[in-house]
This record gives sequence, C-alpha cells and structure tokens, in this order.
Amino acid sequence: MIKRVAIVGAGNVASHLAPALKGAGCLVTQVFSRTADKALDLAQSVEAKVADDLASISGVDLVLVAVSDDQTAEVCNALPAELLVAHTSGMTHLDDISRERKASFYPLQTLSKDNHVDFSNVPFCIEASNEGDCQLLEKLAGTLTKSVRRIESDQRQALHLAAVFASNFVNHLYGTSQQIVEDAGLDFAILKPLIQEVAAKIQDLSPSDAQTGPARRQDIDTLNRHLDMLLEDPPNHELYHVLTDRIMNKYHGQ
Amino acid sequence: MIKRVAIVGAGNVASHLAPALKGAGCLVTQVFSRTADKALDLAQSVEAKVADDLASISGVDLVLVAVSDDQTAEVCNALPAELLVAHTSGMTHLDDISRERKASFYPLQTLSKDNHVDFSNVPFCIEASNEGDCQLLEKLAGTLTKSVRRIESDQRQALHLAAVFASNFVNHLYGTSQQIVEDAGLDFAILKPLIQEVAAKIQDLSPSDAQTGPARRQDIDTLNRHLDMLLEDPPNHELYHVLTDRIMNKYHGQ
Repeated sequence: MIKRVAIVGAGNVASHLAPALKGAGCLVTQVFSRTADKALDLAQSVEAKVADDLASISGVDLVLVAVSDDQTAEVCNALPAELLVAHTSGMTHLDDISRERKASFYPLQTLSKDNHVDFSNVPFCIEASNEGDCQLLEKLAGTLTKSVRRIESDQRQALHLAAVFASNFVNHLYGTSQQIVEDAGLDFAILKPLIQEVAAKIQDLSPSDAQTGPARRQDIDTLNRHLDMLLEDPPNHELYHVLTDRIMNKYHGQ
Repeated sequence: MIKRVAIVGAGNVASHLAPALKGAGCLVTQVFSRTADKALDLAQSVEAKVADDLASISGVDLVLVAVSDDQTAEVCNALPAELLVAHTSGMTHLDDISRERKASFYPLQTLSKDNHVDFSNVPFCIEASNEGDCQLLEKLAGTLTKSVRRIESDQRQALHLAAVFASNFVNHLYGTSQQIVEDAGLDFAILKPLIQEVAAKIQDLSPSDAQTGPARRQDIDTLNRHLDMLLEDPPNHELYHVLTDRIMNKYHGQ
C-alpha cells in the first residue's frame, strides 16, 4: 500500500494533488521544484520537507512527478532507480521513460490555482510497467475518486488531445462570447445559465443530438446576418465561418 | 394581466413554452402551425384548439410567435391588428415588424425537443413597443423565471450571436472531442466530468482567468505533438491551428 509520497513539481497539478493525497491519508514527506519558493509554499501547506535535489529523494512508496509535459521524462529518469515513479502528464508515453518502475497517474481535469477541485468524480487514468505497481496506484487513486481507469499511453495521449477541444477551446469560446456581449453593453452573467445547460445537456444526449442553432437548421439568413455583425471583427468572423462550415458539413454535407 | 395566450409555431421553442405557460396558470387557447400534425400534437398536449389560419386568432391577451427567424416578421405582420404579438426570435428587430402592439419575449436558452428545460433560471429578454405591454410581458416572464430583463433589439441580436459561440459552437467541440476519444477506443463518458467542470469554473472565474492548456502555457512541444496526431484529420488539424493561434495571440501576442 502506498503511504509515503514525494512530490516533484509545485504547479497547478501538484498543488491540487498534494493536499488531496494528504486528505486521503497519505504522508507527503518531500516536495521538490526547480522554483525554490514554490516548493517551500507547497511543502509547508502539507507539512512536508523541501528536497534539495531529485537524487536525494528516498524512503517513499511513490514519487509523483507533476511537471510540464516536456520535462516529465527527464525528471522521471533522474530519480533514484529503486523508487516507483508515476507522472501526471497527459502526453508522456511510458516508452519515453527509461526506468524499471514507471507509471502514469493522470487526472483528467482542468486545474487552475484559484479554483477548488473535488476529485471524487475526476477520472484517474492509471498505467504502470508492472502489474503490482498498477494495482498499488489503482488503490491510491481509489482513495481520491470513484472513477479509476486503466488507460494505456496511446489512449491517454488521445484523451489529452480531446480534452484540449472539450476544455481549453471551449473555455476560449466562452471568452469570445463574453467579449461580444460586453461590446454590446451587457454583462457576461446573462450567458451563464445557457453555458451551464449546454454542458448539462450532453450528460444525457449525445452532442450530435444536442446540436441546435442556425447552422444546424441551415438557416442561411441568420448565418449571413451574424457574419455581417462580425464584419469589423475579422478574427471572430473567420472563426464563425470555420465552425459554421463544420456544422453545416456534418448535418447537411454534400 | 396576460391570461389567454395563442401560440404560433410548434417547434422546439413553442413546445417548451406552451406547457410552461400552462403550468404557470395561463390558458393556451389556440395553436397554429403550417405543419398541421405538429400543431395538433402541441394543441392536444396543452388542451388548446388548432387555429385554421393566422387571421382567425382572437380573444387572447397575447399571441406568442415562435417560428423560424426568417418567418417571424411576416407572421407577426399577418396577425389581427388589435392583438399584442410577442415573438421569441433572437434576430428579429422590432423595427422589422409593422404593427402597433409588437414585442419580443426571448428566452436565452438552448431548447431541444428531447430535453426538459427548467425555465426558472433562464433569462427572458423583454422588449415592447409600449410601456404597458412591456410591463405585462415582464409579469408573464416573471411567472416562468427569476431572471427577467429589458433588452433592446440591437442587444438581443448581439446576445443571439454570442450564444452561437457559447452554445452551438461549444456543443460542436464536445462532438469533436467525442470523435477523438471514440477513435481511440474510449467512451465519451470519460470526458463528461471535465466538460462539467469547465462550465462550472466560469460561474466564478472569468474565462480569461480560467484558461488552461498547452496554448495558454505556450507549450510548443505539446502543441506540435497534438498537431502531429491530427495530420490525417485535416479538418480537426485546421481547427486546432485556428483556436491555438487565437489563444496564443491573446496571452502571448506580439
């Protein structure tokens, strides 16, 4: 069973996972980050020590590596050979890491510093180089969430890509809609019930059945009037065109 | 006070509003639609009669016109002159309608036939050609929702446009993410908690502060790997490019 955990990284993912693991009964013993003051902040918040370097990490059942995707493999490789190392990166393939006990422990969620996340419904994607470690990590994830899944590296990368569309790009569209209503002298708050309902709807309906709007109805008149309204805003005009063409092709394609 | 209501249209908006109005204590007396069997279905569901034509509608405090945007003005103009007529179209300007008692009664929500909508949080946007009718419609909307707002035609059109970004385009991105995970042999359900959280996040944070992901972090390595994964899928490759460039410009623009 995993009890003693060291954390490498002090960014969004580390700052959410460290207290969650502590809350679930783990002892977070050490924190390491290249940014010393962030390491200290996080370490203090979970009553851990700051590690001086990666090589000094020891006496733990797991090292959780929550650093940027492009540094994940290098950091994992630099940790003492005997330790179980699991990373939280969506994109790092297990084959990119050259150590015996390697694993992934990937929470599929958007984590910002300023928002509280309840992990209990967050899917945790688990993969490990050996069955024993996989079971240890599944048990650990099970203390945080109801949704534990074994997901292999290729599938995890596809999930990470899909999440960019479903999360990052969606949030960007929220921002675009905010700009449009604010330019018209209205408050973004008026759109929030709609945004909630669109996300709630696809819990039961498939997005394909849930699609509404002028492109879905092939309402050319409305589409043209919207495009006219965006004539002085070329980037949004272009985006409206691209997305409308996609929806029209899907439902009314040649 | 508005008690007796006739409904023109039998599509998504009419089918949601008619029972909601009946539930709020109105008497829906007549339903008219060009599609006779849809008119009959809706009329029966709210114990109304089917009207033979627009000119025969009479004896009501309000005619609610819930037809497609491009037919709204024409239908409003064809109704008997003495009646108060309110339409539910996002795009139809009050100036496009030539009658004395004209109004808009626009629920800002996505309405599909198959999903139940609780109107109690839905913003209703009210506008009328005279103050008395405006107050009547505000009272009526107040029986359906907590959120009643006076919104003029120009602002309503901006809202309608913004809603396409925040709702129709967002739903289309959900569909795109579904396709990506299903192509990888995974179930769309794994993305649903993320989708919920992204919508929940902007209830408190502005979209600008809530933005995460590789474009926000300027993580060029991950962006390039995502684009590589989409090489055999040109439409999604293009969309990824367009949306990533927008986010990069916003946060890291020259």
